[in-house]
Amino acid sequence: MTAQSPIKAFRRKLDLRNGRVDMSHGSGGRASADLVAQIFRDAFANEWLDQGNDQASLPLPAGQRLVMTTDGYVVSPLFFPGGDIGSLAVHGTINDIAMAGARPLYLSASFIVEEGFPLGDLDRIAGSMGAASRAAGVPVVTGDTKVVERGKADGVFISTAGVGVVPEGITLSGDRARPGDAVILSGYIGDHGVAIMSSRENLEFETAVLSDSAALHGLVAAMVAAAGPSLRTMRDPTRGGLAATLNELAHQSGVGFRIDEEAVPVRAEVAAACELLGLDPLYVANEGKLVAVVAPEAAERLLAVMRAHPLGRDAALIGTVVADERQFVQMTTSFGGGRIVDWLSGEQLPRIC
Amino acid sequence: MTAQSPIKAFRRKLDLRNGRVDMSHGSGGRASADLVAQIFRDAFANEWLDQGNDQASLPLPAGQRLVMTTDGYVVSPLFFPGGDIGSLAVHGTINDIAMAGARPLYLSASFIVEEGFPLGDLDRIAGSMGAASRAAGVPVVTGDTKVVERGKADGVFISTAGVGVVPEGITLSGDRARPGDAVILSGYIGDHGVAIMSSRENLEFETAVLSDSAALHGLVAAMVAAAGPSLRTMRDPTRGGLAATLNELAHQSGVGFRIDEEAVPVRAEVAAACELLGLDPLYVANEGKLVAVVAPEAAERLLAVMRAHPLGRDAALIGTVVADERQFVQMTTSFGGGRIVDWLSGEQLPRIC
Repeated sequence: MTAQSPIKAFRRKLDLRNGRVDMSHGSGGRASADLVAQIFRDAFANEWLDQGNDQASLPLPAGQRLVMTTDGYVVSPLFFPGGDIGSLAVHGTINDIAMAGARPLYLSASFIVEEGFPLGDLDRIAGSMGAASRAAGVPVVTGDTKVVERGKADGVFISTAGVGVVPEGITLSGDRARPGDAVILSGYIGDHGVAIMSSRENLEFETAVLSDSAALHGLVAAMVAAAGPSLRTMRDPTRGGLAATLNELAHQSGVGFRIDEEAVPVRAEVAAACELLGLDPLYVANEGKLVAVVAPEAAERLLAVMRAHPLGRDAALIGTVVADERQFVQMTTSFGGGRIVDWLSGEQLPRIC
Repeated sequence: MTAQSPIKAFRRKLDLRNGRVDMSHGSGGRASADLVAQIFRDAFANEWLDQGNDQASLPLPAGQRLVMTTDGYVVSPLFFPGGDIGSLAVHGTINDIAMAGARPLYLSASFIVEEGFPLGDLDRIAGSMGAASRAAGVPVVTGDTKVVERGKADGVFISTAGVGVVPEGITLSGDRARPGDAVILSGYIGDHGVAIMSSRENLEFETAVLSDSAALHGLVAAMVAAAGPSLRTMRDPTRGGLAATLNELAHQSGVGFRIDEEAVPVRAEVAAACELLGLDPLYVANEGKLVAVVAPEAAERLLAVMRAHPLGRDAALIGTVVADERQFVQMTTSFGGGRIVDWLSGEQLPRIC
């Protein structure tokens, strides 16, 4: 083209109905810029992203510690009952920040897209991410998009990172559980995993099971305000479910757990689906639940505050921390017996998040 | 297993010589924990990662602004002359932070691994990341690993995010270039892209071209100290090369650029390889170079400081910012002519980073 052509004035409008991602969208050239401008910038609109730099420069409250986390999302299918990979990526990363008792402030998003992926689906995912991020009040301030050849990825993968701040004096960590502490679960387990598996297996239940995917930072803020330093640790039981989370905490703190099976909330339809699919709800992923370990004297107060929050309405005291140098998670079953809840050594539910 | 089995005492030792990643390594269960403990925790060893939480809680200097960035790495091949995907992921993200004039503090890493990927290669990549991170003084403080089925990814993809801090008063941004400003390039262009393409095409040159992959934050700190507020903006010309970077800046600032082709440093072997491969060095990716736009009166001082640093030894004044509402990047060629350096509209070098 010549120096006279007014090429800069043109933006090629993306065909969101029929268009597909091609290698040029990952080139760093004009097609990349079009993709960012027409899909991501609209979806995530905020003053930092709008600056169009390779990084965002952000205000930060004084006198607090920084909390940082990251997660990759490879969930299949990308769209499932109750959510999609976009909202999941926002909720999951906000939750990892919140589990430190921190206030999430900013998110980043890295997209790895397979050549041929429908632009309309990418737009829908970005829109869902943007909506989840606005609803949570935590903007996506910077991002990156790469494209790989057809057959070298599976639609789209998203890696989000998040930062937040935690006041000095609040120290939640997985190594702080002590014998005698109470163990509280914020609600029903297994919903996310069953929602994904049902859509994979094309199962229909009388009542549809929806993913519990949700941002927990509001619930956590109420919990921190109510229980403060009595809170030892919190963790969201995602991959590997409640079983993996309790085993991790047992390992980090050098303690055991004794859990009362009857106290663990499981929906009837989730229990039924798990039976059909040969799954144990204890190992099934959740994306909007948390486990809190709290000093026994604060447990009732904490439960009351959680139950007053929409995302903690079904919170339950499910057991206690016990001294156990073997670091076992033991379950008292409804038949009065007991069993060890070990980590899965294999893989029960691939690509659940 | 029974309550008596001392299962917690066991860690399955990974077979780094012959073992391969399987789906269980992404389960969130014991195999995931083994992988993290035996590959990533060793490679990245630092007090925050060692805490084993889903997030890192970090100290932060007071009275500064936060800078945040993210990048996905899908480079192919994973190992190339002068680096690999691990060191590249560290350098690239540090550089995006540094380009804001900021001091990089912490990195996160999200790994998406294809089932069947050799554990030894993953260990080598993690080791290289750890070494690059230690050399730069910027620790990987939190991470995540997901595994997808064979054929659903291509070996390993890494998304890194980074945070840093910038003193109040330093505001580098792509919209601050003004007519009359000087344009400085920190060294030879095209090395990274040519190193990757040569190893893809199995080309051998008399002198091997190595990727320039390097962390630029030390150079940047010296530049900020020397030129301070005279620095308008900096950017690292990665995907899309110098051409894409100058066009982005032209677009953001609403200006044009006039570049002197003879002043742009290109190694003879890179020029030769580009001719062989049908590439234009202006569009070829760099991973250890930066472009700085600076007020004209500070240009000589800045150049001197850059040339005193090992990563800016070959820095050159390559042109000036001009008023141009068409936002053209114009190149004065060695034949005395001129041409417009537009963005690539297609894709020249897929998966270069």
